[in-house]
Amino acid sequence: MPISQERLERRLQQLTQIGAIPNGGVNRQSFTPEYKEAQKLVADWMREAGLATRLDAIGSLIGRREGQESRAPAIMVGSHIDTVLNGGRFDGTVGVIGGIEVAQALKEDGIGLNHALEVAALVEEEGARWGSGCLGSRAMMGLVTGEVLQRRDRDGISMAEAMKSMGVEPDRFRDAKRDPKEIDCYLEMHIEQGGVLDDLGYPVGVVTGVAGPLQMSARLVGKTDHAGATPMNLRRDALVAAAHLVLIAQRLAKEASPTAVATVGRMEVKPGNFNAVPGEVFMTFDIRDIYREPRDKMEHEIVAAVEKISADNGLQHEIKEMVRLEPVVLPRKIVGVIAESCRRVGVPAHELPSGAGHDAQIIATQVNTGMIFLRSKGGVSHDPQEFTEARDIALGTEVLYQTVLALDK
Amino acid sequence: MPISQERLERRLQQLTQIGAIPNGGVNRQSFTPEYKEAQKLVADWMREAGLATRLDAIGSLIGRREGQESRAPAIMVGSHIDTVLNGGRFDGTVGVIGGIEVAQALKEDGIGLNHALEVAALVEEEGARWGSGCLGSRAMMGLVTGEVLQRRDRDGISMAEAMKSMGVEPDRFRDAKRDPKEIDCYLEMHIEQGGVLDDLGYPVGVVTGVAGPLQMSARLVGKTDHAGATPMNLRRDALVAAAHLVLIAQRLAKEASPTAVATVGRMEVKPGNFNAVPGEVFMTFDIRDIYREPRDKMEHEIVAAVEKISADNGLQHEIKEMVRLEPVVLPRKIVGVIAESCRRVGVPAHELPSGAGHDAQIIATQVNTGMIFLRSKGGVSHDPQEFTEARDIALGTEVLYQTVLALDK
Repeated sequence: MPISQERLERRLQQLTQIGAIPNGGVNRQSFTPEYKEAQKLVADWMREAGLATRLDAIGSLIGRREGQESRAPAIMVGSHIDTVLNGGRFDGTVGVIGGIEVAQALKEDGIGLNHALEVAALVEEEGARWGSGCLGSRAMMGLVTGEVLQRRDRDGISMAEAMKSMGVEPDRFRDAKRDPKEIDCYLEMHIEQGGVLDDLGYPVGVVTGVAGPLQMSARLVGKTDHAGATPMNLRRDALVAAAHLVLIAQRLAKEASPTAVATVGRMEVKPGNFNAVPGEVFMTFDIRDIYREPRDKMEHEIVAAVEKISADNGLQHEIKEMVRLEPVVLPRKIVGVIAESCRRVGVPAHELPSGAGHDAQIIATQVNTGMIFLRSKGGVSHDPQEFTEARDIALGTEVLYQTVLALDK
Repeated sequence: MPISQERLERRLQQLTQIGAIPNGGVNRQSFTPEYKEAQKLVADWMREAGLATRLDAIGSLIGRREGQESRAPAIMVGSHIDTVLNGGRFDGTVGVIGGIEVAQALKEDGIGLNHALEVAALVEEEGARWGSGCLGSRAMMGLVTGEVLQRRDRDGISMAEAMKSMGVEPDRFRDAKRDPKEIDCYLEMHIEQGGVLDDLGYPVGVVTGVAGPLQMSARLVGKTDHAGATPMNLRRDALVAAAHLVLIAQRLAKEASPTAVATVGRMEVKPGNFNAVPGEVFMTFDIRDIYREPRDKMEHEIVAAVEKISADNGLQHEIKEMVRLEPVVLPRKIVGVIAESCRRVGVPAHELPSGAGHDAQIIATQVNTGMIFLRSKGGVSHDPQEFTEARDIALGTEVLYQTVLALDK
């Protein structure tokens, strides 16, 4: 077998040391000294795997070996090595270490590819410090504007300042843009964050698309009243209206499509006394699907429900859009190649959507893209408890390796 | 007409000055210098109305004139002159000023009663400082234990200390107990706090009973998950369960009886991020009725629903009882006399329950008790916006006057 589970495990263990926190988690946000140290280590591994390394103009680390056909576009494999605050060991890192392992296996097996091979550790995927998620992939696709560089984190440090301290010149960020013609395809291996593979007992999954989140808030204003003295028929109870909306959002997601989800994650009830009818509720809706049409339908039906339920209960309402990202369906051709690679490796080729966002979602807007998911215990992520078996990482990396070989033909 | 609307208005205006706050409200909590000043003014009016005044052992102010039959028990009329923090002008005060007006009208008309007449300004009805509501009436019925005197308010002042500073000796509180045989009946006029009379357009209402609140809390614990990545069928969403319970509580109250109410007033959703499935909810239930049976039925059905909905959604739950007070149905005989007095005065005798608690509820456990409600704008209470028309106060006081005359026979 070309893929070394022992080496994958050892490298993951080494990377975990950089930014390690006592409870088993990792704190390694982009543009910090820990991040720079991790990049240095990963660059060493890239060179060991026969890749020439460079930092692009936004700060992503890219390793490359040329192909046998000159001027053939590159097969790019990657993910990220930054974490959220108090994050886990596997989110992002498995995709980068797995990509390097593929390059190293090709080198050790003496296999040449027609295409160039690039392994990318894309910078600032998590976006926790400046609300600038998928920065590296967006810069690579030419989707970053200068505004984000001026944003300040909670300590008052701007992204531009942080980039400089890591040796990246912020003014040059536009140079990170790649001509999509230079990239034949992009492949990302990542832990699955919904607990679906763990629930089904499959080590690996084939991603069919990445959901686009649409987030809205609603403020419902009725009337605060005495909970004992106000008869049921005279109430304008904002919480009763909000409860209807929670259940409507749940029902709409179940009806919309098998991949649709809807969540009311935040709800604030005022005045919040046990003996007062709630006069005001603030609530959020997060709705996602990999298909645009059912997601837009959910959106319109939730807005209509807010309006109708408010009217029925004598409330005023205000709806605000917070986030709107486009969903992406990944090309069937690449899904098919990954599924075939799964069969070759001997694991079920279970197809599933990604509800969480990834760099792949950005790159997929201009480049043929595929994703491989790894089983993650209980779907826990962004948490020190995040856990994926070394065996599953090795199986996923074998699938990635077979996929690279197949796509090279 | 024996009742003077002008005098009622003037006295209300004078009492409002004591503890007045800029926005039209009143801050006059029990056992404060403002409260003592208000008692002094009210005692002056009592004496002007021909009543001999005294403070009882818990600090309630009582004015009394003897009846023509010696040893006949007293007709007691009363309410309270303490307010909540930043309360209104009418809650409690209209019943005390109205009671004094009845005594003064009897005196000016030269009408003697067979029974003694007592007008009571019962102390600490609101209970906002020490959680000791209806203190004066509970002491009068012998229902106070020494523990409450040691409780401290948010400034660390115990009730015993506050009583002493007002000249009341706390150790003697048991002497406030009256032999129920000394009291023929108790009548309380109070603003209606549910907006029912205002909604119907009636100046006055006849209270049929006082609901007993039963308050419970429930903590529901499911699992916090990624709002994008976790499919609908793998969720253990505590807020979805809580939303079902809000609507079940509402439906149960509507079905239980025309006087039943149920309220979820407080709800805390954790972690409270727009992109996380809520793993935990804390919520409260406040259920009331003037009839014991439907209230107990609501209680049992809500507990059963918490258990079933938790099981259906894979949640753990914990239910805690916070408050349980007995509901009181007021005697039909007194309800009938008050209704007859309404007809005599020329106002509709609309019967309705009290969802809010009152001293009448305590006294009714041992003494024949009746209550007259006054229209209050929008049902607003415990708020500077509280408002009752002077004309309605005068009409209610006439009903009170006629009721005293009828019950004296």
